[in-house]
Amino acid sequence: MAENADLIALGREIRRRRKALGISQEALAERAGLHRNYIGFLERGERNPAATTVFALARALGVSAAALVADVG
Amino acid sequence: MAENADLIALGREIRRRRKALGISQEALAERAGLHRNYIGFLERGERNPAATTVFALARALGVSAAALVADVG
Repeated sequence: MAENADLIALGREIRRRRKALGISQEALAERAGLHRNYIGFLERGERNPAATTVFALARALGVSAAALVADVG
Repeated sequence: MAENADLIALGREIRRRRKALGISQEALAERAGLHRNYIGFLERGERNPAATTVFALARALGVSAAALVADVG
């Protein structure tokens, strides 16, 4: 997975929103129906999630999908 | 691919934006570096694109990624 500025920006926003909620990667993974490790990869921009995964994360974080990708290019 | 309201909403927005630009699915595919048929599937909500594909489509349509997913969920 070549470094991708968009995925890094998305990951940073997922982390920022998760920390604002004060929840762990494990708690976010559980809410979104994902594996705990996957959250770590996403937050570092090391995975290219499917659209439905981005939408599930937005719901799990209590924000709109648009808010979660707001920082992307 | 079970019918997914979010993917249908995303597809509808891709189509709406493409039509507003007055370009064909083929032209959009070329701009975004995708296969022409894939655009048709996406617009019908029949595919679950990777995040980077959504971002490439937004750029090809000249809108932000946030605008493209604004109607989702």
